[in-house]
Amino acid sequence: MSQSKEVDVIIVGAGLSGLSAAKRLREHGVSVLVLEARDRVGGRTYTKELEDCGWLDVGASYVGPMQTNILGLASEMGVKTYKVSSKGLYVFFFKGKALKYPDQWPHSNPIVWLDCNNMIRELDHMSEEVPVEQPWTAPKAQLWDHMTAQQWLESVCWTRAAMEWGRQFVHSVITVEPWEVSLLWLLWYVNSAGGVDSIWELEDAAQDSKFVGGSQQISKKLAERFEGSIKLNSPVVDIVQSEGWANVVTKNGNQYKCSYVIVAIPPWLQAQIHYEPPLSANKRQLLQKMPMGSCIKTQTYYKEAFWKEKGFNGVTATVDDTMLVGDTIDDTHDDSKYPALTGFIMASMAHTANRMTKEERERRTLECYSKYFDSTEALKPIHYEEFNWMEEAYTGGCFTSVCAPGVLTKFTSEIRSPHGRVMFAGSETATYWCGYMDGAVSAGMRAAGEVLYKLDVISQAHIEVKQESSDPARLPATVFVRHAPSVGGLIKTASIICVVTLGTVFLWKYDKHAINSLLTRGFGLRNPFSWTRNIF
Amino acid sequence: MSQSKEVDVIIVGAGLSGLSAAKRLREHGVSVLVLEARDRVGGRTYTKELEDCGWLDVGASYVGPMQTNILGLASEMGVKTYKVSSKGLYVFFFKGKALKYPDQWPHSNPIVWLDCNNMIRELDHMSEEVPVEQPWTAPKAQLWDHMTAQQWLESVCWTRAAMEWGRQFVHSVITVEPWEVSLLWLLWYVNSAGGVDSIWELEDAAQDSKFVGGSQQISKKLAERFEGSIKLNSPVVDIVQSEGWANVVTKNGNQYKCSYVIVAIPPWLQAQIHYEPPLSANKRQLLQKMPMGSCIKTQTYYKEAFWKEKGFNGVTATVDDTMLVGDTIDDTHDDSKYPALTGFIMASMAHTANRMTKEERERRTLECYSKYFDSTEALKPIHYEEFNWMEEAYTGGCFTSVCAPGVLTKFTSEIRSPHGRVMFAGSETATYWCGYMDGAVSAGMRAAGEVLYKLDVISQAHIEVKQESSDPARLPATVFVRHAPSVGGLIKTASIICVVTLGTVFLWKYDKHAINSLLTRGFGLRNPFSWTRNIF
Repeated sequence: MSQSKEVDVIIVGAGLSGLSAAKRLREHGVSVLVLEARDRVGGRTYTKELEDCGWLDVGASYVGPMQTNILGLASEMGVKTYKVSSKGLYVFFFKGKALKYPDQWPHSNPIVWLDCNNMIRELDHMSEEVPVEQPWTAPKAQLWDHMTAQQWLESVCWTRAAMEWGRQFVHSVITVEPWEVSLLWLLWYVNSAGGVDSIWELEDAAQDSKFVGGSQQISKKLAERFEGSIKLNSPVVDIVQSEGWANVVTKNGNQYKCSYVIVAIPPWLQAQIHYEPPLSANKRQLLQKMPMGSCIKTQTYYKEAFWKEKGFNGVTATVDDTMLVGDTIDDTHDDSKYPALTGFIMASMAHTANRMTKEERERRTLECYSKYFDSTEALKPIHYEEFNWMEEAYTGGCFTSVCAPGVLTKFTSEIRSPHGRVMFAGSETATYWCGYMDGAVSAGMRAAGEVLYKLDVISQAHIEVKQESSDPARLPATVFVRHAPSVGGLIKTASIICVVTLGTVFLWKYDKHAINSLLTRGFGLRNPFSWTRNIF
Repeated sequence: MSQSKEVDVIIVGAGLSGLSAAKRLREHGVSVLVLEARDRVGGRTYTKELEDCGWLDVGASYVGPMQTNILGLASEMGVKTYKVSSKGLYVFFFKGKALKYPDQWPHSNPIVWLDCNNMIRELDHMSEEVPVEQPWTAPKAQLWDHMTAQQWLESVCWTRAAMEWGRQFVHSVITVEPWEVSLLWLLWYVNSAGGVDSIWELEDAAQDSKFVGGSQQISKKLAERFEGSIKLNSPVVDIVQSEGWANVVTKNGNQYKCSYVIVAIPPWLQAQIHYEPPLSANKRQLLQKMPMGSCIKTQTYYKEAFWKEKGFNGVTATVDDTMLVGDTIDDTHDDSKYPALTGFIMASMAHTANRMTKEERERRTLECYSKYFDSTEALKPIHYEEFNWMEEAYTGGCFTSVCAPGVLTKFTSEIRSPHGRVMFAGSETATYWCGYMDGAVSAGMRAAGEVLYKLDVISQAHIEVKQESSDPARLPATVFVRHAPSVGGLIKTASIICVVTLGTVFLWKYDKHAINSLLTRGFGLRNPFSWTRNIF
């Protein structure tokens, strides 16, 4: 089976990135053909229609107000958003107990609060020093890239709760363990999403809203525009470049001729393709060093939102090694029809869960919920769904690719560098909101821009499409949050106060005159100790 | 172009591992077909015939007396070995100066010697605690797997020279930076090669000998036996399993039917193949987390071995960021015909070198040699050769795959677990001498054993072929090396001695009687200070 067609640009991957590239190219009159390995479009966005529980995003789902690329595209496709509810108490499951909090980090104990606050604030400050477009130019790039996030957590945290919260943050945001990832890469990732609050919080942040009807709709509606220009079940195995053209070969033996290729799939899958001429040595090594995160997304439906009745908002977090679900969020849709909890099984726990049966994962998920919300209602769901992105041959994990120490400073911009007539897209190549739907869209448009520039359709200055406020702005922090001392600072201050007080008392007891004269002469005070007469 | 053939076992990869598997299967009357992506056999062993300088191993080359699997195979193929010469002074290039030593670590300064000795000894002791077959069961497996080798180096070294030597050791042995690799994985790798001395030294260790005529001969001679059963230029893209058989598809569209498949290629290339049914979630994630090391092997030929004339043995080491070549070794063959130095460009420096032209790399290599050996002769070679394994599409780096923190304890034995009718070989799946030619041979034989067991030809107990002394024995260490103090220990001891001495003098001066009575009554001494009368 072999056929030869001609088209301007072939796009590998019909995810949001590939389809966004196709859209921009089409808008400039450039013909495209999209080759997709799966039997569906959408990539890491995938919306299932359940028999009795409505639609369910088993992949990327949340969107925030700063994500103007994806919001703009959704709006153009007529897909609306609704707000995720965050009213109620949060739960942090720690040392076998479910601790309730009115916001997202534990503070029953003031020392723990100070410690968490300081850790988060430091992370935020440090991330601001990492330029999103060239993170390798950060003043401390080498230092931070040669250590793991775990090393940094160990150096900054005084309490076990803060350490665990830090690990939980890493789990939630990039679905790997803090010892698997470069500190510099984590800081860059956080900065590319506008800081800790912006990446972590619900309201006005990355988890602010969802798409009514599910996120895959955007890709589906885009795909309708390209009717006939998308080939499903067509994994690309070979890209051969020659003078003036490129030949793209699929696993089933079809061949397609074109002028340019945009590869819009995750880095490790980019490495799955054979290239002629071969990729550069550095590119090939880089692609080996960007594994996907590890996550199983589960959804549990209930008759009633029992957690709401108990005052919880449904958001929980833990890194307890006996608890399967590390993170939950209320996933009841805006029509309130199907009360549901989304649960994420992440990082090391995801690999443990891979060795279980579906029944075992369900049982252990329900056990988690009954403990997190102290409720036997949790054990009686009406339906349980799960989706394992690590099992997907054409994704291999989620949410995104991560970098271990040493990668970011060594390979710098090679993740985005074209290989002759081949450009690279996919959310991992984005500079803002890397790993998010928004990054997928902007990366696709940038790669399309690179082709348009080569085709002399646009100027170099217009390769990137800058959206208004696509540079995520930091969320404001209160004065107290900004200036509260760290635990170390607190201990230091307390020690100084103790030493000075004790010293003064001692001297005063033994040599009242000397102090008196020091204060009188040195500071111009008269009778500084008159008020103490009745005390000592 | 599509054809269907039938054979018992298809082997993917005609490197030492695949060919060893083929050999064992054939010996039991099982028919094989070997599919090789390249236009040659040998994998990471590749011997070039140069016009004026004889043969040259541009890939794996050295062999040690404990490596009985590869030695046995070579001997069977009639390939002889010769000893690598280590007579003369070693060079460690440190802080811009070439320091000469009679053995392989710097000790002009006794503190540095103690520090290096302690670091190496600790590494050796710790590695012994990591079982080669199940490294994840080591008592401190979790702790060691959650830190980088760099973190450990920083905790154990007192001097910059020892730190740099440690980094150099990591470069030389696994061609990555110490911050890229899990401490547990490094310890396991060292133990799988019999300890630090065994992996690092020349004589009686891993660099003891070379094969006369080059290492690729072994594969070539093996391949002669399989005339007609090896297909070159046949990269495998798809393995489809069904009831009772498997179908293997190559990039050029050929299809081959068989009962079992042995995939004998590096982990990241295993991930390049499409599998039906797909790989398990954990296997797919693991393959993403085993990138290849980074190395360019260079060879510089001279009229005379000028370094020998100056008393050097040709072995040098450095981690100086201005020096391209991190490691050298004399590669003059046993016939002394073509004096040559092998130079390794490794780890971060390899990625920097990838951005240079060949001319620039040659110039900078010669500059290194002129500085290491303080000789202008070094600038006048008769020939320069280099081979970049990172550029090879069907290897992607060398010497071997490495694991960042968290991989070994999480995935445990999944690197070797069969996937239905598909078995996995390649040096990375070996337990002893992983990453070496010896490991490639034993892994290939083990995978063949797995097939033979499934075919009811052998019993489970005979899957692994145990060679005499294939378990590498530790090299003996001198009493001084074993018991010399660490720098920390030295400082502690010196401090205690100082404090005790000063305290004694102080007390004696002020209260001779109290000490006298303490020593007299406490220790039963009479007149303990009589000898001091004339001193104080």
